[in-house]
Parts: sequence; C-alpha cells; structure tokens
Amino acid sequence: MSRAVTNLQIDSTRLWDSIHETAKFGATPKGGVRRLTLSQEDKQVRDWFRKACEGAGLEVHVDTLGSMFAVRKGRDMSKLPVGLGSHLDTQPTGGKFDGILGTLGALEVIRTLNDAGIETDAPLCIVNWTNEEGSRFAPAMMASAAYVGDFTVDDILSRKDAEGTTVGAALDGIGYRGETKVGTQKFSGFVELHIEQGPILEAENKTIGVVDHGQGVFWYDGKVTGFESHAGSTPMPLRRDALLALSEFALTLEQIAIKLGPNAVATIGEAVIANPSRNVIPGEIAFTIDCRSANADTLDALDASLRAAAGEISKKRRVEIAIDQVWRKPPTHFDPKLVDAVERAAGTLGYAHRRITSGAGHDACNLNTIMPAAMVFVPCKDGISHNELEDATQSDCAAGTNVLLHTVLSLAGVAS
Amino acid sequence: MSRAVTNLQIDSTRLWDSIHETAKFGATPKGGVRRLTLSQEDKQVRDWFRKACEGAGLEVHVDTLGSMFAVRKGRDMSKLPVGLGSHLDTQPTGGKFDGILGTLGALEVIRTLNDAGIETDAPLCIVNWTNEEGSRFAPAMMASAAYVGDFTVDDILSRKDAEGTTVGAALDGIGYRGETKVGTQKFSGFVELHIEQGPILEAENKTIGVVDHGQGVFWYDGKVTGFESHAGSTPMPLRRDALLALSEFALTLEQIAIKLGPNAVATIGEAVIANPSRNVIPGEIAFTIDCRSANADTLDALDASLRAAAGEISKKRRVEIAIDQVWRKPPTHFDPKLVDAVERAAGTLGYAHRRITSGAGHDACNLNTIMPAAMVFVPCKDGISHNELEDATQSDCAAGTNVLLHTVLSLAGVAS
Repeated sequence: MSRAVTNLQIDSTRLWDSIHETAKFGATPKGGVRRLTLSQEDKQVRDWFRKACEGAGLEVHVDTLGSMFAVRKGRDMSKLPVGLGSHLDTQPTGGKFDGILGTLGALEVIRTLNDAGIETDAPLCIVNWTNEEGSRFAPAMMASAAYVGDFTVDDILSRKDAEGTTVGAALDGIGYRGETKVGTQKFSGFVELHIEQGPILEAENKTIGVVDHGQGVFWYDGKVTGFESHAGSTPMPLRRDALLALSEFALTLEQIAIKLGPNAVATIGEAVIANPSRNVIPGEIAFTIDCRSANADTLDALDASLRAAAGEISKKRRVEIAIDQVWRKPPTHFDPKLVDAVERAAGTLGYAHRRITSGAGHDACNLNTIMPAAMVFVPCKDGISHNELEDATQSDCAAGTNVLLHTVLSLAGVAS
Repeated sequence: MSRAVTNLQIDSTRLWDSIHETAKFGATPKGGVRRLTLSQEDKQVRDWFRKACEGAGLEVHVDTLGSMFAVRKGRDMSKLPVGLGSHLDTQPTGGKFDGILGTLGALEVIRTLNDAGIETDAPLCIVNWTNEEGSRFAPAMMASAAYVGDFTVDDILSRKDAEGTTVGAALDGIGYRGETKVGTQKFSGFVELHIEQGPILEAENKTIGVVDHGQGVFWYDGKVTGFESHAGSTPMPLRRDALLALSEFALTLEQIAIKLGPNAVATIGEAVIANPSRNVIPGEIAFTIDCRSANADTLDALDASLRAAAGEISKKRRVEIAIDQVWRKPPTHFDPKLVDAVERAAGTLGYAHRRITSGAGHDACNLNTIMPAAMVFVPCKDGISHNELEDATQSDCAAGTNVLLHTVLSLAGVAS
C-alpha cells in the first residue's frame, strides 16, 4: 500500500457537518432526533442520503423492505463488495449519533476515497438498513434479519405499528418500497461503525472499541390480568391490582438481572394500563420485557427465573401473568479475522483501543450469521444513548471513521 | 299519612326496564356501559332522560355545567323542593347501575306518585349531575362541587380531557350548556340512592345500607423523572429507571394503606410512561394517586407517609418523584336527621338494614356541605363496581327505590 493510502484520513469537519445537517430531520426541542422508521422524517433523511450518495458517484438501489444500497465500483467487479453502514432511523426520543454515525461515516469514507482518487479492488457498498430501532415496528433490525433469512419478507411487510399501519403500507407511504429482492445484494463482509451506547470506553479513556461479541436478546410481550374495581370501596386485602402485580414483577426482575450480572440486563420498557382511570383499580396491563447477555446460559437462566417469578407473583396476588417470548436472538461472536482487521487498523492509526462486547443489538450481529462481520465503537458521553442527550466528540467520530476507512481498505484491497 | 301512602310501592318491573333500556347507550360487548361524561353516548341518555321526565309531567331545566333538574310541583310552592337523583355518566368500562339506579330510581319515585295521584307539600326535583365519575375530566363530582361553591364555574368550564377538549366545548358539542346559573336551583335537602360498590351489605345479607359517613378523598398527580437510556448497554447499577421507582412507590403505598387500615385505601389508577419503547429504560412516568378514609387523621397520616416514601425512594434510586395534591375532600358526616329518616323508612318497609360508610365519593357528599343530605345503599354482586361486570338484583334495586320514595315523602310531606 502506498504511503498516501496508509496515511489517508477522513475529513472530520465534513463528517461533523453531515451529522448535524441530517439532525434537522426530526429535530426535537431538547437537541435530539425523533425519526421513527418509515415516517415523513425518515423519508426526508433518506432523500438527503440518496442525493448525497449519488453526488459521490454511487449507484443507489433499494430493496423491497426499504433498505438502501449505494455501490461504488471496484477495479474487479467479479469480487463481492465490502459492505459498510448502519441505519438512519431513531428512537422516539433518540440522539444524533446512534446509527447515523455509521451511515454517514460510511459516506465520508467514500468521499475521502473519491478526493484521494483511490480505487479499491473490490467494490464498496454503503447500506442504510430499514428499522434498526424497532420502536415503531417489532422486531428491531427487521430488515437485516429478513436479509439473512430469519424472517420472510411477507412476514415483515405485514408487521403493524401501534396505529395498525403495516410495514408495507408505511413503505408505500414514503415511496421507499424498492425493487431489489431482499438478500440479493451480496457482500464479502460487513463493517459497522457505531457509538458504544455504554460507559466503558469513556471510563477507560479509550478512543476505539474493537467489538468482538454482541449480547443475545430475548424479547417478551406480557400481560397482567387482575380485576378492575372501585378505588374507594374495595378494601386493600380484596384487591387484584394489576399494577401492583406488575410492580412486584418489575422489582423481582431487577433483582434477577443483578444476581445474574454483571453480564446481564433486563428492562420493562413499555407498560400500558387498559382503560385507566384514577379511581379504578387497574385490571389489566400489557407490558414488554427486554433481556440481554453475551452469555447464552445466562440468557436461559434469565428466562427461567422471570417465568418462575411471574408464576409466584400471579399466585400470591390472584392475577394472571402471561409471558410470551416474541424474539430470541443468540449472542454474537463476530468474525475473528474481521475483528483482527479492525484491531490492526486502530493500532496502525495509533488510537487507544480495547476489545469490547456490544450491549445493544446491531444489524452487523444479524449479518454475522451469514458473512464475516465486525464493528467499530467510539465513546459516547456518559454512556448515554436512546436519549436526546446522546453525544459524542467530533474527534472520536473522526477516529472511528478512520478505523472504518482503513478496515474497509484492508478488506477491499488497494493496488499498491 | 293515609294507609295508601304508607303502603305505596314503586313498580319494580318499570324501574328494571328503564335501567336496561338506558344501558344500550354506550353498551359494551361484555355487558357494561361506556358513557363518558358529555360524550355522544351521554347525550343519548340525557335526551332519553329529558323526554322521560317531560313525559312524567316534570319541568326540565339545565344549568351552565349541564346538570339537569326536573321539577315536580308541590302543593306549597313557597317551599324549597326536596332533591333526589344521582348521575348517568359512567367509567370507561363501567356498569349499568353506578349512578343510573339513583337517577332512574328518582324517576320511578315520581312515576309512582303520579300513578297514585299523590301530591307532596314541597315540590320534588330530580337531578342528573354532570361528570360524577371524573374519568374524562378531573375532578370527579365537578358539577355538584361547583354547585356548592368548591370551584368556580369558569374553572370547571376550562378543565380539559386527555385530548385537550374543554368542559365548555364538550357541553356545546352535545348541546347541554344550559341557561340556569349554577347553584340557583335550591333544595331543602338531597337524597341519593346508589349501589354500595363494596362487599359489606352482600356479605351481611342486608338489603339497605343507611349511609351515615362518606370517605374523605385526596387525589394527587405524580411524576417520576429518571433517565432514559439504552436497555442493552446500560448496566443495572447505573440505571435511573422511572418504572422501577414507581413500582417501589406503588408497593410501599400499598403497605402504608394496609398499615393504616382497615379504614384506609390507596390506589395508583393511572401510570403512563413518556415515549415508551421496549428497548429504552423508562425515563419519565406520570401517575395518579387516590387515597381515602372516613377518618380525617388517617387521611393526613396517609398523606405524610406517602410523601416520606416518595422522598426515600427518589433518593435511593436517583430519580425525582413529584407529588402534587390536586383534590382534597374531607370525610362526610351526613345530616343526622336525614340519616334517621332513611333508617326509619327502611325499618317501616321491613328491610334488613345497617349503618354504613360510603367508600366512594358521591354528589350527595358535596351537597351535604351546604344542605342536609343522605344516601341509601343497596348491595351489588361481589362488591364489584367500576367494572362491566357490576350487577345488582331487581329486588334490591326496588327495595332501595322504595326507601328513597318514603324518605322523600317524609321530607316533602303529604297531606293526610
């Protein structure tokens, strides 16, 4: 590799400007972003991204689940492209970096190669995966899951949001139901840059996390069925209060996760009382559970313990607690060769780095089941993510993008 | 009083038919009624009620908060009328009897007097109070509260439902903003027939509850503010989970009420997570608290204990818990002479009866602060109310209406 290629650095200011320019699509008053997948705000950022990719000379195509692929030709078009990218959708009160850094970082890699006049041997292909977040439609990472064959396309197209709109209707609503058959855009491997979404890199003063594992995830839909009755005239001992049963379950689940920790977490993110009224004892509550661990045995122990707790509490409080597992994603072991490539790039560039487990799920975890995949993490402020206060420094974002650049170059190959 | 008057009985079948005829306005699949105040379903039952009252020769007028007054002339029109009635609105998943029995029972009293050709000395006036339930607009019993001067009419008119519709707009929406100035239709006293909404009469095999006390009620709006963060990458010890804090508060509140019992209850009826997502740790939850006791000191102890608990939990879990008291209704001591009149009527009619405290709030509790008021309870099945399964027997409903009839006759006076 020539010295010019070895020393190649991305344009930190251009990357930073892109991140802040797109943050206006769904900007919230507190400085975050609300850009639910396939919403009008998502359409705006997709249109921006398509135009930017075309401006960088890439050929953009869209698959039938709305995932966007932007291809840069290589010297040898018989080779499969190296994939890089992430997602542009956000949580309901999300931040400016989650997913966005990885997608716009990939765009910055291409722009940097264009400016330097560098052609890679294999082609490159940026991806913006549809619905990574999973907050409008379940499951999260649905497009990459369908890509690797975990779900059929028809199944995903029929999933509904809280208003009853299907994925198919939402795709048509913003004009992003593309023509590429899901799974047909192949890659030799996939590299995803992302903020850590946790506190470790910042605490240890590391610039780069070389992600070698991803946590497995179990998702559940739950429902407590007690009995609605009058808040004034029903004595405390006669109540079958669904909220109190859920409260006891939530605190027990917290203890279970702490006991199985430090490598285990459990969260009740949604809880909705049916027909709530301030003078009626709650009779029914629907809720969700999210359990994660990088260790498969720990996940199974979480599953068994939470089911046992539900059984005990339902008996004690004379309510029903239904627990339905709706998603089961095993832990990820990223491709050792690609992980090494990321680590080498970080080392060559001189960034302080460490191996790390991803607490969050990512599209790269899905892709790793059918191709070599790896991830690059950069620190985020106070470990905060899925929050409008999510923040990262320009310098760390640039460092991560440089690692992405050099990892991709090592995979795609550059004529010396 | 003549023998004909002494033996007078209402028409049990006609009463039962009225109850079931009006139950179609807002009927739910499970056999209950959803008739939120000032909704289209409420307009339907109001129109039916107005027509029925006019059919019984009553003169109907409506006050500026929508409460309906149906006056039957007395022999001596210089006397204030005796008031009787209740409300026709229901909880979101309410039953066929709560409020309805007292209003249609009052109509049945008038119809019975008409059939028997009995004229009372004082006039009689049936009332259908607006928004007794409080589930669409807070507070509950708002119209009778404004009637007795606890709130200004403008204040009540500006109260909003969850969609932001004001009471004033809702009144106009169904054409029930009347012209009578609130508080100007005076009464010498008020008697309200109601289902018990609790388990005591049924358990003790009594037909009539002679209500001598009503529980005081404290209502609060609460908010837990923790911190939204990623459900996968935030270790358990670093979380500031608003739902876990509320769970701990809810279970502590239950223990407080049990400890201060048996004459104390506390309920969290509403709890809404802001921006819920299954993979985001809840950062903010709005909730309500309803505390009741017939003893003022117990209510004060509940108040002090729940505030202390909120303080401790917020400190321990590094969240804020705001507790705002939005309504404070002292316990009711019903007028001893009217309570005696109810007891005498029950005794004369030969019904098994006992003195009882009302667990629920009622318009009669508000009225008792400025005039003599009393209540008649009848049993309801399994003590269940504010539920679609709410039920009462035809025979008990008739017995309660007979007690209402004879109490009203004793207050209004009948020429012997």
